[in-house]
Order: sequence, then C-alpha cells, then structure tokens
Amino acid sequence: MATGKINVSVENIFPLIKKFLYSDHEIFLRELISNATDATLKLKHLTSIGEATVEYGNPVIEVKANKENKTLHIIDQGIGMTKEEVEKYINEVAFSGAEEFLEKYKDSAKDSGIIGHFGLGFYSAFMVANKVEIITKSYKDEPAAHWICEGTTDFTLGDADKTERGTEIILHLNDDETEFLEENRISELLTKYNKFMPVPIKFGTKEKTLPKAEDAPEDEEPKKITVDNIINNPEPAWTKQPTDLEEEDYKSFYRELYPMQFEEPLFHIHLNVDYPFNLTGILYFPKLSNDMTMQRDKIQLYQNQVFVTDNVEGIVPEFLTMLKGVIDSPDIPLNVSRSYLQADGAVKKISSYITRKVADKLKSLFNNNREDFEKKWDDIKVVIEYGMLTEDKFFEKAQKFTLYPTVDGEYFTYEELEEKIKENQTDKDGKMVILYASNKDEQHSYISAAKDKGYQVLLLDTPIVPHLIQKLETSKENISFVRVDSDHVDNLIKKDEDKTSKLSEEEQEKLKADFEKVVPKEKYTIQLEAMDSNAAPLIITQPEFMRRMKEMQQTGGGGMFGMGNMPEMYNLVVNTNNELISSLVGKEEAEQERIIKQSLDLARLSQNLLKGEELTNFVKRSFEMIK
Amino acid sequence: MATGKINVSVENIFPLIKKFLYSDHEIFLRELISNATDATLKLKHLTSIGEATVEYGNPVIEVKANKENKTLHIIDQGIGMTKEEVEKYINEVAFSGAEEFLEKYKDSAKDSGIIGHFGLGFYSAFMVANKVEIITKSYKDEPAAHWICEGTTDFTLGDADKTERGTEIILHLNDDETEFLEENRISELLTKYNKFMPVPIKFGTKEKTLPKAEDAPEDEEPKKITVDNIINNPEPAWTKQPTDLEEEDYKSFYRELYPMQFEEPLFHIHLNVDYPFNLTGILYFPKLSNDMTMQRDKIQLYQNQVFVTDNVEGIVPEFLTMLKGVIDSPDIPLNVSRSYLQADGAVKKISSYITRKVADKLKSLFNNNREDFEKKWDDIKVVIEYGMLTEDKFFEKAQKFTLYPTVDGEYFTYEELEEKIKENQTDKDGKMVILYASNKDEQHSYISAAKDKGYQVLLLDTPIVPHLIQKLETSKENISFVRVDSDHVDNLIKKDEDKTSKLSEEEQEKLKADFEKVVPKEKYTIQLEAMDSNAAPLIITQPEFMRRMKEMQQTGGGGMFGMGNMPEMYNLVVNTNNELISSLVGKEEAEQERIIKQSLDLARLSQNLLKGEELTNFVKRSFEMIK
Repeated sequence: MATGKINVSVENIFPLIKKFLYSDHEIFLRELISNATDATLKLKHLTSIGEATVEYGNPVIEVKANKENKTLHIIDQGIGMTKEEVEKYINEVAFSGAEEFLEKYKDSAKDSGIIGHFGLGFYSAFMVANKVEIITKSYKDEPAAHWICEGTTDFTLGDADKTERGTEIILHLNDDETEFLEENRISELLTKYNKFMPVPIKFGTKEKTLPKAEDAPEDEEPKKITVDNIINNPEPAWTKQPTDLEEEDYKSFYRELYPMQFEEPLFHIHLNVDYPFNLTGILYFPKLSNDMTMQRDKIQLYQNQVFVTDNVEGIVPEFLTMLKGVIDSPDIPLNVSRSYLQADGAVKKISSYITRKVADKLKSLFNNNREDFEKKWDDIKVVIEYGMLTEDKFFEKAQKFTLYPTVDGEYFTYEELEEKIKENQTDKDGKMVILYASNKDEQHSYISAAKDKGYQVLLLDTPIVPHLIQKLETSKENISFVRVDSDHVDNLIKKDEDKTSKLSEEEQEKLKADFEKVVPKEKYTIQLEAMDSNAAPLIITQPEFMRRMKEMQQTGGGGMFGMGNMPEMYNLVVNTNNELISSLVGKEEAEQERIIKQSLDLARLSQNLLKGEELTNFVKRSFEMIK
Repeated sequence: MATGKINVSVENIFPLIKKFLYSDHEIFLRELISNATDATLKLKHLTSIGEATVEYGNPVIEVKANKENKTLHIIDQGIGMTKEEVEKYINEVAFSGAEEFLEKYKDSAKDSGIIGHFGLGFYSAFMVANKVEIITKSYKDEPAAHWICEGTTDFTLGDADKTERGTEIILHLNDDETEFLEENRISELLTKYNKFMPVPIKFGTKEKTLPKAEDAPEDEEPKKITVDNIINNPEPAWTKQPTDLEEEDYKSFYRELYPMQFEEPLFHIHLNVDYPFNLTGILYFPKLSNDMTMQRDKIQLYQNQVFVTDNVEGIVPEFLTMLKGVIDSPDIPLNVSRSYLQADGAVKKISSYITRKVADKLKSLFNNNREDFEKKWDDIKVVIEYGMLTEDKFFEKAQKFTLYPTVDGEYFTYEELEEKIKENQTDKDGKMVILYASNKDEQHSYISAAKDKGYQVLLLDTPIVPHLIQKLETSKENISFVRVDSDHVDNLIKKDEDKTSKLSEEEQEKLKADFEKVVPKEKYTIQLEAMDSNAAPLIITQPEFMRRMKEMQQTGGGGMFGMGNMPEMYNLVVNTNNELISSLVGKEEAEQERIIKQSLDLARLSQNLLKGEELTNFVKRSFEMIK
C-alpha cells in the first residue's frame, strides 16, 4: 500500500474555476468589491488598534469603466499589498487572506465587519476578463507592486509607480462580456449586490444644484457643482439600534429597498439577536395587492451587508414570505440544498425566532392602538390566517390578536365574539354557532335575515377560510361555523321552537307535489318549512358541509377526495306560512306554475344563480309586467 | 519584472471544492452515476471498434446503501482503471478523463453518448463523505486497485482482490448526511436526475409475479420471483426517431415523465435537429388547468440524458413555458446568467427553432384534422394567443391556424370570418366591425340582440384578449373589435339608416329631463335612441375604448396610464320607440318614477350591476308584484 499526495493540476483546474465557480458571471463584481471592502476595513481595524499609524481618512471604493480599452477598474484606498503579499495571497489560489487575517486578530476583529469568506473570489475575475492586472501599494512603507496575468497560470510581477495607498484591479474584458462596460449594467449590478455595503462606493459623478443664497437676485441661475456619485448607503437602517431610529427612518429605508413601490408599508419589525445565532434585519408588512404570487421572494437576504439572494424559502416560515424587508446573518449556510436547510437546527431556530418576533409585534400593535390595528386588518389578515393554519405556535399566539370582523365593520377578538353571541347563538344542543358570510353583496338577503334575528354575521372572505374554520372547530370546544346561506334562518341555529304551519299536512303534501312538478329534481331538494310569514316565500340554500369540502378541495388540499368535482346541490326552502305560498293551494295549475316559476327565478336571483338566457327571459317578462 | 507560476494551494482549495462546487449536496449522486455511465459507454465504444476484445455484455450500474456501516456504494461494470490510471485521473484533480478520451477518439466516439463534462464530479463525493474508497479493475489484464482518501490531500493506493471488471465507489457518509442512506431519499434522487440515463441503474430488488401456465389448477398460488429493480429507462422516447414511435409511445412517455398527471396531453411535438446546434426533445401541449402559475417550469432540461433543471426560462420562449416535456441538448450553456443566456446567439437560435417547430405542428394539426383541432382549441388558445402577442414571427405563422370561435360554437379562421361578415358587418365608413363577447352568460341579452340582426358574435374570453385585439387592429387594415355591450345594437355597426322616433323633439326633451330626475347622473349618461319598438326599453352600455383601456391596465401593461383606477362609466340607452317608454309621456310623476326605477333595475340586472341590498329590495318588490 503506497501513500501519496493528491495533486491539483493547475492547468486544468484554472479553466474549471472560471467556468464553474459561480453560475452567474455577474457575481465577479460583487466579489471584487467585497475584497476592496475587506481591504478597507482591515486598514480601519489596524488603525483603530494602533497597529497601523497612517491616517484612515474617508476612504471610498471607485468603479470605473473605460470603453475604449475595454477595461473595468476597481480601486480601493485600503490596506494594499506588498510584493511579498501579492505572491502569498494572489499567486496561491484559494488562500483566503481574510480568513487568515480574522484568525490572527480574532478577538479584536470580531466586529470589524470583514466579509472574508468568499475565498476564490478574486479569481472570478477570469470568468469575464482575459487579462487581469493588480496595481497595489501597501500601507507599509514599501514600493507598489504590479501583477499581470492573462488567464493562464503564468504571471508577471514587478514594480509600479502608484503612490497612493490601496489596490487597483484592472480587468481587460473578453469580447463577449463587454456588457460589463455599460453604465446601466454596472449600475444595475452595484445596486443589486452592493447597495448596502459598509464602505462608500463611487461610480461616476453627478450634478448637484446648490441652494441659492437668501439675498441672491431672483433671476440668478442656481449654481451647480459636480460631486461623486456614491451608489451605496454604508449604514443601512438594519445595522442600527431600534432606539436610534424614528418611524420615518423605517419608512425611508423601505423606499430605499423598493424604489418602485409606491405604497407605504403598514408597519415594521426590527430583528436583532446575538445568541444563539447572529441575525439582524427589518421586516415590513406591505399592503397586499390582489396578485398574491407577485408578493413572494421579496425579502432580501444579506451576509454582512452583501446581497446574497431574494429567495428566502426555508429560512423564513412560508407564511411570512409575503412580507418584505431584509435579513442579514452570517449564520445561514448559503450553499446547501433547500431540503437540508429545512432540517438544519440553526435555521430552524432562526425561523422560529422570526415567527415569535412577528407574533409579539402584532400583539403589541393590537394592545397599543387597537383602532389602527383594525384599520390594517384587511391588509394583514391573509398573512395571519395563513400563519395560523400552518404554524401551530403562531396559531396559539394569534388567539390574542386575531380579529373577526362582522359584515357591519365591527371587529371582535374571539373572546369578545364569544361573549357577544354565546347567549343568542347557542343551539338546543349547547353548540355555539358562528355565522359568517363570504360576500356581503352576493349573500345580502341571507345576511339581512340573520341580522333581523339579532345574530352577528362575520365577514370571512379569504380563500383559506374553509381550512381555517375547520382548524378552529377542532381546536375549540363545541362550536361550529355556518355560512348564512347554508340553510334558512330558523334552521341556522336550531332552537327548541316549534313552528306551526298554516297549512294542513295534506295541503303540504299536495304543495310539495305541485312544486316537484315544476322544479327540476336533479338541482333542487324541496324542503317545506313553517317559517315567519314575513320571510321570503322561497329561499335557495346550500348545505355547509358539502360546500365547505368542495371549497377546501378547490383551494388545494383538505376536504374529501373527489368532492371538488361534485355538482352543486341546493335546497329549495318553501315557506308554507308565506301568503304567496299558501295562496297557491287550490289555484289552477297554469297559474300555479307561473307563480312557482317566477318565484323560483327570484329566489335564484338572490343566490346569484339566474344567468344567461334565463335571466334575459326573466327581464323581458318583468318588463311586460310593469306595463 | 519577474514571471512565475500561479500555485493552486491544494490544502486550501480542497475544502473549497467541497463547499462551493455545487450549491446542492445531493448533486454528488448524479455526478458519480455520470462517471459510472461514462466508464460503461467507453467500454462499449472500445469493444465496438475492436480496441477492447472483452465481452461487453449487458452491464448495469448498481447503487447500494449499507446503513450499518453508513456507506453508499456505486458499482459499475465499465472500463475500470489500472493503478496507473487511478494515479492519473483521480489523484490529479480536475483532469477530466472523459475530455481526454473524447479528444483521443473524437471521430469514432462522437455518437457514443459519453457525458464527460463534469470534470470535478468525482470530488463532489467529499461534499457528503469523510472517506471515499475506489476499488477498480480495468478491462485490461492487470490487477485491481484500491484507493482510499479521507478528505485530505493524502491518499493510499494499493492492490485489491476484485475480479470482475469495473469500478466500485464507496462513500463513508458524514454523520449529518445520512439522509443519503434512506431508501426513499436515494430513490428520489435517482428518479430526479438519472431516470433517463443510458445505462441501466439497479437499486435493490423487487418482486415480480409470473403469469400462470395455461393448464395450471385454479387454486395454484401465482409464482413470484425476485428481480433487479431497474430505476431508469435507458432509451427514453426522445432519443428515438419519430418514425419509430407510435402515438401510444408518446403518451406512455408522458406518463413516465409526469406520473402524477392524470390528464392525457393534447398532442406532442418531436424536436430533432443536428445543425447548427444539437437538440432533441419532445414537447407536449397539456390540458391547461385554471391555475396558470402551476403550469410553469415543467419542461425538463437534460444534457445527454442527465437531468439538469426544470427551469427553462430564456431557452424556451416564454409563451411555451406553459408546455410540458423534455429538451436535451449539449449545446445549451448551463452555468451562465440568465441575462447572458438571452443574449447568446446559439440560445436565440434554439429558441426560434422551437417556436418554428411548434407553429409548424399547429398548422399541420389544423390542416390534417380540423374537427379535432377545434375541439382542442379551448385548451391551447391561451398559449397561442400569448405567443401571438409576444413573438412577431409566431404571430405571422399563427394567421393560418388561429381560430375565432363564435358564441354558438362555430370556429372560423380569420379569412373565413372576414368572408362571413364582410358584407353585413361593414359600417358606413367602410370599416369591418368584429363583434365579440367575453362571457356568454353575463352578456346574453346583448348577444341575443346582435344575433337577431344577423351578426356573428365571437366568444373571446381569455384575460389577454384586450391586448391581442389591440394588436390585431393595428396589424390589419380597417377593422375594429367591438364588444356587444359597448353600445345598443343599432350603434354597434353604424349604417346609413335613419331611424325616426315616435316621439316629437319636445316630448323627447321632456322625457330626458324626467329620466335625469330619477337616474343618478354620476353613474349614467342618458342617451335617447329611436330603436326598434321590440328592442328593450332600457339598455346599459359601456363604451369599448374606455373599458378596453381599463382591462389592459388591469391585466398588466398597456392601455393608458391611470385608467385602471377610473370609475366605471355607463350609458343608459332609452329606446324612445318602445311602448313602455312612450307610455311614460304624460304619466303622473310618482308613477313615472316607479316605472323608471323598476326598469333601470331590470336593465342593471341584464348588465350584472344589481347587487346587495338593491337586489334584495328588488326581489322583495317583485315577490309583492306576483301576488
């Protein structure tokens, strides 16, 4: 048995690094600016601990494109490198200088913000450039160095005449990568990846209009000066302490994050935790638009202020992916599979921390300004309801602030609702019945009948409501949700009241037969009821259970298999105490039929079932009747 | 100026390869099976050209998990390696054996299917394993070799007692990667990545029931035998010639691709091109479900039968991402940014080739079996309409097969439609007016009025229709699309007919004033018209232009800025020749008001504008009127 050393064959690995290191070529700019930032922050650290005696000043990183020469320049005023350091850090690929630096200064450098984990970053330059130059001058009193490499493993290293401290990287771009010389493209990349990095980044200049002096003549032209165009905000809101920020700061940071978003956020949640993991960030509840799919993937994930991705699936619980904002954490493993992420202990903790913070914020909003919370309810309810359905911990916490709005715009907590309806809405078996509507307009006649009885009717109109009430029914004792149009009003909440019918049993049987002659059997089940004489003569209802199962199937999952495709089934409630109905008894057949048909059409109108040709005919007939 | 050699520092690059090479750990299995496939196909090639004199046989690749030892084994019966070859191919990282092999045998090996471009693939094993062993015996008459490496750059290499030809890779999995020992997880990965790879892959065994002999006694238990569980189909349909496949083969391949899909595809398109790029594949038009977002990203992209991704954005034109199926091409650059992809010449050609093939297929379906094509129209129209809107080339070709269905279920091509309506539906200015409805039910009364005039009414009901007809109007001369409810029927297509009103000018002015007293001004503009006396007394219309602009804005883009939020504006057409209307003249005010109100409600019913409390009151009133 022989032993040996694996030999990484440089000639072969180099093109592979170029090709496969990152799936996106554009990443190279992020990497080089990360390096420049590191170089700057290292100098800051060394001056702060007195190891470097130079003036730190106000260093910037500059990006410049030269279209004529097809070169892109990244210039920093950081720590720089001596010739020996270039040999060490650059020529030995994958020897990450940042890691070594952090190791050496680990105690004092902890909070210096040095990024240092991209390792191969510098070599990503060769994904887009066929020749790369480094001109660099160390903060130490040594001559500047000039390194040139044309994308092979050969390089040259000599002296340079650079006098200012820092490093300039010059990329000679490939012919098919000249997009990276375009101002728009560079701006796009800097905005995407570097918008909140901690050292100012200059790209070009811009004009600035100076304010006029107070005593200036009216017709004086305002003075303009040219200033550096700094593309980033080195101190984004999430890096600050909540106590140092006003409401307006959060709003303006939201505009910074989403310049194309005109709506203001509803409120924010500032995340800030050191232990057992590091995480900062700000989450916003946006005003939700109708198109829910557009809302996803808008939370941005950063690592030490470098943009990583806007796909936070697995890190943030699913119901919170509808939020917006920023999460920054060095503790989230980036390059592993999503299925692994979901099983990772640290990530689970992060996810449940975020859930808890969101619940706490909602609770405090509810406690501190209930009126305002009620106003926001319509915009936030989808998130909260979805969270209640999918996260048991959140479901528990949400009991304290979840609101149940009525059709009249009152908002109750569950406790308040129970208090309000317990007496009047408990049926003869002791079950509390919560009435709801899904559409104020379409179910108007049913709502109004229920309100006449003194019942409270909730307005629950999100698509997940069938699932949510299913969950509420099983988690609370002896309650049930019933939609107002699932039976006629006397049956919605069954009490021990015997209604007597004005019609004899015989007359009723005859009446039922008469209806069955006219009403299509396959669509309606006829149900004779002795209701209030003022209630409508005919009412169409749709039993709760069947309807809810169908709805659950249609909104994905749950319900009973196959029910999604069941035909719609309705009951036709005939109020035998209504005058119009009792007057049918003994009428001649043709007249009976005319009245039943017209009445059925009216009942169908109330349940939005009269359409197309039938509606046209109904309208025509009704115009005739006016005359 | 000194020159030198970049030194890739092995100790440092090795962990980086492990960490950053692939973002998904699970990829390792795909890589190792690709290597095993290569090793097998290389042997096949060498035996076919007579360079290897061994028996090729029916080699399989086997995957085995050993939970006790926490090892995963990948065993092939391919070309194998001698000790020297292990030294060369394995110990020199990134020296892709496949590339060298292809170079050496480039003429004869062209069609051998060798994958060989993953290069670093083998080392991805270290993403999940802390120790990797290779036991390998070459097809050449040399002793077997045994290589062991524990995730550092040290290795040992000795002899092994393996006697069968081929290579076994043994992964000793890390403690936190033991998911890859679970049968379900392995099956999942093999199904995802290797389902159509060209060498049979065995994973475990399964029971198979043998058919009974014909003369077997009835009560004899059927015999069961244990057979290899082969997880892949080494010859998927797309690798065959269209002439070798029946309709049923395409359907069964669809079920293979989408086992959870119960609906059959509508039809398929077999892609097969050698020049100027290599591409094979089969695309299917699925039955579209209502939820369009669920349809996306279902086309699978392969490279030489290895699954790469199901995100084909940029490669397939957007309107075709609603299709399903497979594309296999070695010519699609995989690891570059999407924005780069879209600019890439080869990719552009692929995209336009696919578009052309789809258009050709649709045309031949239309030509060969128009009846069948009409039946499928409702399922395919969204794709075609979206394609017409977004790809000009497709728009042109689609003229030949795009169908315009009428509300009565007839289907016309544009040419046929023109022929049919030119005479009767050209207005006094020579413009051909194409009438359409968006909903047969809701616009029933308007459709029926238009049909009474002998007009054809199209049913155009997809959300992009407003955009599409806008495009059609600008690309064809002197035509305009008008929805049936955008004016009363006599005005939809203006002809030189002077209608005379039964009412005098004076009476008309008085009538208009009477209406204005009752009808809310901010919602309705009153428009007196001398129509047929049989036409409805009141009709509510919504002008085409305004409505279309609003719709275009609501379905994203186009239209006129700000119009999406304009209030709905309607015209109230009063038919002065209708008896009910003329009878109003001279009636007392209270009675006039009652009639106007009830008539307005009926007109609103026909336009789906009567809702909520107003509808409830209307129904109540109407029940009273029956009595």
